[in-house]
Amino acid sequence: MAYIEVEEGVPGIRSLFNFRPETGKPLCDLAEVLLRGPSPLSSGERELIAAYVSHRNGCMFCMNSHAAAARCWHGDQKQIVDELLREQNAGSFSQKMKALLLIAGKVQNNGRSVTPDDIDAARNAGAADADIHDTVLIAAAFSLFNRYVDGLASYTPTGEAAYEEMGKRMCEKGYHI
Amino acid sequence: MAYIEVEEGVPGIRSLFNFRPETGKPLCDLAEVLLRGPSPLSSGERELIAAYVSHRNGCMFCMNSHAAAARCWHGDQKQIVDELLREQNAGSFSQKMKALLLIAGKVQNNGRSVTPDDIDAARNAGAADADIHDTVLIAAAFSLFNRYVDGLASYTPTGEAAYEEMGKRMCEKGYHI
Repeated sequence: MAYIEVEEGVPGIRSLFNFRPETGKPLCDLAEVLLRGPSPLSSGERELIAAYVSHRNGCMFCMNSHAAAARCWHGDQKQIVDELLREQNAGSFSQKMKALLLIAGKVQNNGRSVTPDDIDAARNAGAADADIHDTVLIAAAFSLFNRYVDGLASYTPTGEAAYEEMGKRMCEKGYHI
Repeated sequence: MAYIEVEEGVPGIRSLFNFRPETGKPLCDLAEVLLRGPSPLSSGERELIAAYVSHRNGCMFCMNSHAAAARCWHGDQKQIVDELLREQNAGSFSQKMKALLLIAGKVQNNGRSVTPDDIDAARNAGAADADIHDTVLIAAAFSLFNRYVDGLASYTPTGEAAYEEMGKRMCEKGYHI
């Protein structure tokens, strides 16, 4: 049960957006533009960074839902999502994506962990300013979302079916409140 | 020098908002409603939680600017900001504020660190759902802002005068982009 009185049965962050729509609105706007707006990174890549950071933070709700969205975006290639999250195997990714995932993991720890060498490695693999910016902000944003969901102990469904449906909706309809 | 090409001399998060206004807008909207909108916590208390979390993350830009805003809101009582941040002394705060700062510190670490006992202690000291919600979301939000500022190595001014001016502007004019 959540630490504050939210509507019963409404899962995860959605129950918190309903509790306080004034803060829910900018948080949804941020997710929409950051994960689905124009970017050199595909939405599938961005959802994967979101799931990866959530996995590192141990946030089951965000990890499962954004992994499901990433699978939906990746279609026939969806096994790479599980390779990364379940087997810690980034072998199928491009050098650029590997370098960006490394930066995302450092941001998950603390922004000050990112070094000029990490940035150089990403640039040498083809990352431009916008790739680096969006990677850092996605990792930072899920440092917020994960803590919001878990810090208030919001309802985390169990079972894959609930997340599959959530991921499909996130992929097809997005994050507007 | 920042890791991406931003306008020179523009400090901290402002340079990142200018780089990507599409994400800057919801982030500013969030700061405005969360730190200055209706809440059972005063803006001074909310700015103090923001500065405290930033201090724990070692984010000098956010810590110095939000500490300056907290001092501005606290007026004659502004010494309690420095007691907390410089001396780790929360002795001047109410039991409620002490319990909320403890929750904020746990969220800074990881949302899952918050326990039912932490929540009970805050309730016993007079905290309601909205106090607890806003505390958790402020701590989560600064887990984002700190990582965004430091993960991209944005320009961090030195010297107290720059922050005093920033804090005054944040206190008087707010966070609209």
